[in-house]
Amino acid sequence: MQLELLSVGTELLLGEIVDTNAAYLADKLSELGINVYHKTTVGDNTERLAAALRISLARADAILATGGLGPTDDDITAAAIAQVAGVDLVEDEATADSIRSFASKASFARRASFARHRGRSLVDSLLKQAWVPKGAQVVPNPVGTAPGFIWRGEPPFTDGSKTVIALPGVPAEMKAMAEQTVLPHLARLAASEGGEVIVSRVLRLAGIGESQSEAEISDLIRAQTNPTIAPLAKLREVHLRITARAADRAAAETLIAPVEAEIRRRLGDHIYGADEDTLEAVLGAMLREAGLTVAVAESCTGGLIGHRLTDVPGSSDYFLGSLVAYSNEAKVALLNVPEATIREHGAVSPEVARAMAEGVRQPYGADIGLSVTGIAGPNGATPEKPVGLTYIGLAGAGETAAEEYRLRGIRVLLKERAAQIALYLLYRRLRARTAAEVAR
Amino acid sequence: MQLELLSVGTELLLGEIVDTNAAYLADKLSELGINVYHKTTVGDNTERLAAALRISLARADAILATGGLGPTDDDITAAAIAQVAGVDLVEDEATADSIRSFASKASFARRASFARHRGRSLVDSLLKQAWVPKGAQVVPNPVGTAPGFIWRGEPPFTDGSKTVIALPGVPAEMKAMAEQTVLPHLARLAASEGGEVIVSRVLRLAGIGESQSEAEISDLIRAQTNPTIAPLAKLREVHLRITARAADRAAAETLIAPVEAEIRRRLGDHIYGADEDTLEAVLGAMLREAGLTVAVAESCTGGLIGHRLTDVPGSSDYFLGSLVAYSNEAKVALLNVPEATIREHGAVSPEVARAMAEGVRQPYGADIGLSVTGIAGPNGATPEKPVGLTYIGLAGAGETAAEEYRLRGIRVLLKERAAQIALYLLYRRLRARTAAEVAR
Repeated sequence: MQLELLSVGTELLLGEIVDTNAAYLADKLSELGINVYHKTTVGDNTERLAAALRISLARADAILATGGLGPTDDDITAAAIAQVAGVDLVEDEATADSIRSFASKASFARRASFARHRGRSLVDSLLKQAWVPKGAQVVPNPVGTAPGFIWRGEPPFTDGSKTVIALPGVPAEMKAMAEQTVLPHLARLAASEGGEVIVSRVLRLAGIGESQSEAEISDLIRAQTNPTIAPLAKLREVHLRITARAADRAAAETLIAPVEAEIRRRLGDHIYGADEDTLEAVLGAMLREAGLTVAVAESCTGGLIGHRLTDVPGSSDYFLGSLVAYSNEAKVALLNVPEATIREHGAVSPEVARAMAEGVRQPYGADIGLSVTGIAGPNGATPEKPVGLTYIGLAGAGETAAEEYRLRGIRVLLKERAAQIALYLLYRRLRARTAAEVAR
Repeated sequence: MQLELLSVGTELLLGEIVDTNAAYLADKLSELGINVYHKTTVGDNTERLAAALRISLARADAILATGGLGPTDDDITAAAIAQVAGVDLVEDEATADSIRSFASKASFARRASFARHRGRSLVDSLLKQAWVPKGAQVVPNPVGTAPGFIWRGEPPFTDGSKTVIALPGVPAEMKAMAEQTVLPHLARLAASEGGEVIVSRVLRLAGIGESQSEAEISDLIRAQTNPTIAPLAKLREVHLRITARAADRAAAETLIAPVEAEIRRRLGDHIYGADEDTLEAVLGAMLREAGLTVAVAESCTGGLIGHRLTDVPGSSDYFLGSLVAYSNEAKVALLNVPEATIREHGAVSPEVARAMAEGVRQPYGADIGLSVTGIAGPNGATPEKPVGLTYIGLAGAGETAAEEYRLRGIRVLLKERAAQIALYLLYRRLRARTAAEVAR
């Protein structure tokens, strides 16, 4: 079964709001095995909306439209759907009754009298929402007043029956109605057509780029058709998405398992988590499990590592603090980095990274010290030490070490990348430690 | 001028990511007075992408596509555009050279040789990105390796010339390329076609919420038609956008000026900047101007304040560091907060906020100390000290003070809001100081 998403609203085309409805629905529909090949956004214009509906109905079996169902004059979705379907708009009596009953309540009457002086009364405006294309099944709205509807029939210009569903654009209303009525309806429709489900597993990688991770598994990517494997480059990391189609969830998971195992065999060093995991949350769980605490000495990342670690609820159990030491004086005074080390090697050097990682443990009394020193640019670079040169230091839970990275990008990206690598190196050390303990 | 947005990526149709690129571009295009009537999303499928391109080109003057420009096999945007435009893909030599030069660097070569044994080499993958439709102007990517392009010509099935622009889907890359190259290009194109321009001025507010700022100017909002005034609630702050339509930029600015002046008269205390200003950049300029340095003591914000201050290039001139002291022990040992103060008043108290602000100046040798202590939740709250209770302390350049805030929201939002208020209080103090000096 093929369905198209249609988002209606001029505010979406002006960029005033981000269309989170479409992402929510796309996710739910893919779980039902319903194919969404197109998603279209149009403004509050009947002619353009009708044209978009015709294009979509010519391609797909169903349309799910959100937005444009409210009480105001620029809410035109029901009228446009009726026009394209070749049917009249009719008043749904039950809906009209429920709007009148809602309007008779005291709290509403107060607001209504307030609004009455601007032309049409509030009740008349709300009653507009009871008009749906003839033959449509009304979708109740448990959160607001605008109902949705499901229309099924054969528009004059198509071959065969089509389903057109309309829901309000307010996310809380749309979600409640989708979950209570529309998604179960679509699940039955898809099942009756002998549909399949789509199940995805997302593996989250750190310490490796998109091209390199893809190169490691390019033979798998090319050979696989079900499941498919898709690499996705995110701001800080790479995701590998394994997507299977099957008759049901269990069968899809059975298809995914061996592919995931093979990817883990090749790239396991870099796979820190799956699906909704974040690196900071995974790290937090490992630190808590190991009973270890960490403190961070940050230079070019400016506090970003501490910020990310403290996004995790309960991080005070293992994160003791971060000391941002931008100046050489602060590195000496607060982190006990020997002045001679800075003089001889420069502040951006493996020697200073090691001294910072060691030096930050004492003041916080932390088991592990993690440090970053680098050149975020655009100033401060030299031919020998270009923008992007970064050293990550690690002390505790193993020997003190520093690693060199030559990162690319503008200042804000360099900070993000340096922080991500630092967290990844800590992750790698903790994992090695756990593996060593298991082996013992 | 009419332009359509086209987002390319199966992950968008599966709901795995929210399409923030489209909202960003729609916003910028509306500022240029370019009409966007349709926005379409298609997956990584050449046939469907080509069909969508044809539909859009039949309706509009231009297409701006994002996504599908990377090095992998499912990046098909360039090929689909070439197919629809009726031209070949050709290698852009300058881009290929720059990829080869990047690839010849030692750090990359190490990674590449590691990856080489599995099928195609990394360099070959990257070189795919140098192929663009014949006649296209390459849009440089200052952030990553995938360039974009602007193609202009007459596709075989359209009347007249069309513009097709392609940018990568990674938001940071897309934005940098849009701002540097594509939006200026489109602005010239729109201007050359005559028509009205739309000019917007965005006033940026801190220390005030959306409803309150709107209430202060609701009469203006209602009375204005050209320019219009729109309040926009952002993650950390409120923006007021004044938008004028006129024959040219100068005429639009003449319409905006008196409205801006009236808004500034009413809300000036909260307006820290305009358009692309950020609070951290404005603060940085004020600190540099005043010759003052700052250090931060952070508790619940975890490093976010230091992170934001160091997003500004050259911030090492005035930002000396941030000391994240999550535990009471760290507050005592590193910030010299008296143990008795913590025992008597608790770590989240005005007394501790003041002691932290004073205590962070000495180790860094900073003129000003800024501090935050609060309960970010979900743990650590008591009936007297609920989640969201936050104290901001400020010492130096005036008397030491602490202010109480009762913030609302989940943990990550509380961190953002506390950091924003802290920066706003520092801004207010610096402004008062400047005003006092001017008066003297």
